[in-house]
Amino acid sequence: MSERVTVLGAGSWGSIVANLLDQNGNHVTIWSRNQSQVEQLNQAHTNNKYLPNFKYSKTLVATSNLTDAIQNADSIVFAVPAQSIRLVAKKVENRLEQLKLKPNIIHVSKGLETTTSELLSQVLAEEIHIDHRKSISVISGPSQAEDVARKDITLVTAASDDINAATHAQKLFMNHYFRVYTNTDMIGVEIGAALKNIIALGAGALSGLGYGDNAKAALMVRGLAEISRLGTTFGANPLTFTGLSGVGDIIVTATSHDSRNWQAGYQLGQGKSLDQVVKNIGMVIEGIDTTKVAYRLAKKRGVEMPITTAIYYVLYGKIGIKDAISQLMLRDRKSELDN
Amino acid sequence: MSERVTVLGAGSWGSIVANLLDQNGNHVTIWSRNQSQVEQLNQAHTNNKYLPNFKYSKTLVATSNLTDAIQNADSIVFAVPAQSIRLVAKKVENRLEQLKLKPNIIHVSKGLETTTSELLSQVLAEEIHIDHRKSISVISGPSQAEDVARKDITLVTAASDDINAATHAQKLFMNHYFRVYTNTDMIGVEIGAALKNIIALGAGALSGLGYGDNAKAALMVRGLAEISRLGTTFGANPLTFTGLSGVGDIIVTATSHDSRNWQAGYQLGQGKSLDQVVKNIGMVIEGIDTTKVAYRLAKKRGVEMPITTAIYYVLYGKIGIKDAISQLMLRDRKSELDN
Repeated sequence: MSERVTVLGAGSWGSIVANLLDQNGNHVTIWSRNQSQVEQLNQAHTNNKYLPNFKYSKTLVATSNLTDAIQNADSIVFAVPAQSIRLVAKKVENRLEQLKLKPNIIHVSKGLETTTSELLSQVLAEEIHIDHRKSISVISGPSQAEDVARKDITLVTAASDDINAATHAQKLFMNHYFRVYTNTDMIGVEIGAALKNIIALGAGALSGLGYGDNAKAALMVRGLAEISRLGTTFGANPLTFTGLSGVGDIIVTATSHDSRNWQAGYQLGQGKSLDQVVKNIGMVIEGIDTTKVAYRLAKKRGVEMPITTAIYYVLYGKIGIKDAISQLMLRDRKSELDN
Repeated sequence: MSERVTVLGAGSWGSIVANLLDQNGNHVTIWSRNQSQVEQLNQAHTNNKYLPNFKYSKTLVATSNLTDAIQNADSIVFAVPAQSIRLVAKKVENRLEQLKLKPNIIHVSKGLETTTSELLSQVLAEEIHIDHRKSISVISGPSQAEDVARKDITLVTAASDDINAATHAQKLFMNHYFRVYTNTDMIGVEIGAALKNIIALGAGALSGLGYGDNAKAALMVRGLAEISRLGTTFGANPLTFTGLSGVGDIIVTATSHDSRNWQAGYQLGQGKSLDQVVKNIGMVIEGIDTTKVAYRLAKKRGVEMPITTAIYYVLYGKIGIKDAISQLMLRDRKSELDN
């Protein structure tokens, strides 16, 4: 299988996805707004801001011109931040109409749109007219770009409401070090991917407070249970959260302390204020927005999400972090599967 | 709630469980075959072989006399190794008959009986006559004894076919740092607890080979999927494996490298032979037996367990570890929830 693929966004994950698709024998164009990054990718085959020391494929073509980027595309892969996806999708829709194209739309982003509380596939479906796309699917799972860059083993999920679209994405991405499983529960996959950042914040906070492995495992399991409870109100299959874009993502969060979300939680646990933490990290901490959206959704849908609520209260200064933990521990006796 | 509780076995977990039950206001007797350990617990309130530097409650009573130990017991907690549980249960049955007692039976052990491939609750049900017990339940979950000793937050599951028995165990064990959830899927809880040691071996092996976090997360998620597949053939609820005695235990395995099973896997990954590894570790590596039992069960029940099979082949020298990984990666394209 060889296609013309356009990857939108050249951050660490977007650029590595583009490189992987190139290695799989596709004709890949990567789009970035940043002209100097485009030149670096085309000339030195590097992307120093994101993955210093990594050499990208020489056949990978970069451009800052969106029309050029998507010309003749069989598939378009969105790898832009969650809060930018609507804006980029609007521009893509405009070009698709002009170019009379109907590509497969795939996204590899994680998060929820904060202004609307929507999933990213919903945003794409709203902005890209059904006549201008063949399908919408998502690739998600525990996939740190650095590991994929060095061809370490990685397993991810290709999800779509349409099994043919999921299978198409699976074929496009899969190779001997990048194994792709299909799943028709796209909503579940996206919710798992987005909400795990809340758990990352919490896991960091527990470590910052000096708690051990039992507490960390407990947070993750009970966090997973509440993500699953919220997810099922969207029609997600609870078993999806046992998969790669759920437990898998949460495990990477537990075992890798490089994540900004974990780091932010850790600093909060050590007693720093949210303002200080945001200043120290100096980049977007996705989990902060996601916590707010999830808290809002839980209230609206009547879903009990005690961990999300506790983290929300801590983030927004309504309660101290130690009091939040005491309250969680002193809840009534519960059954494991009910709530 | 205050009961007379007998804990059988004074290893690190048994002794900490006994101490916890004592702190919860029960009258606790702990039984060990080892007379010098009994004296140490009674006189110095220590258990140096297992938890050096920890001071046990002064009201905790130890004895090496089994009849004395279970006299008047409302509840008996088995905390002996999986392969010893039948023998101890036979002796307990004998005493219960003499003493005309009918206590609650709870076990906190992890594993399967290798000779019969049975769950430990099955072994207990076979050996202790229904007229000599009120109920059988199990306490399981991510609970390293060291963390519980220092009153770190720990969450576990109390499972029994009988919800009243699970709720009884929950009330007995729960306090402000040890939170207990009930679950009526005892089989699922026991299978999760036992089979996670296979994943611990595999996770260690991947680290020993130099693989990163994506690979580790992938192994755990796909390992969980096959544990769940096997478990459902026993009538377990697949959602149980998303809980504390499933994902929870697996996460502790991932984040704590103290486990003998993880260590054994790590040394195998570094190229040592099984004989060398067993010699180096110098203690029982539960995962080796469990892998054999699970492999046997998977074949008998026609369940696809590629990770367990690969680890079985590696352990028993049928295939090299790198070839095993290649074979796993080159399997057909799959759907995430089917297999």
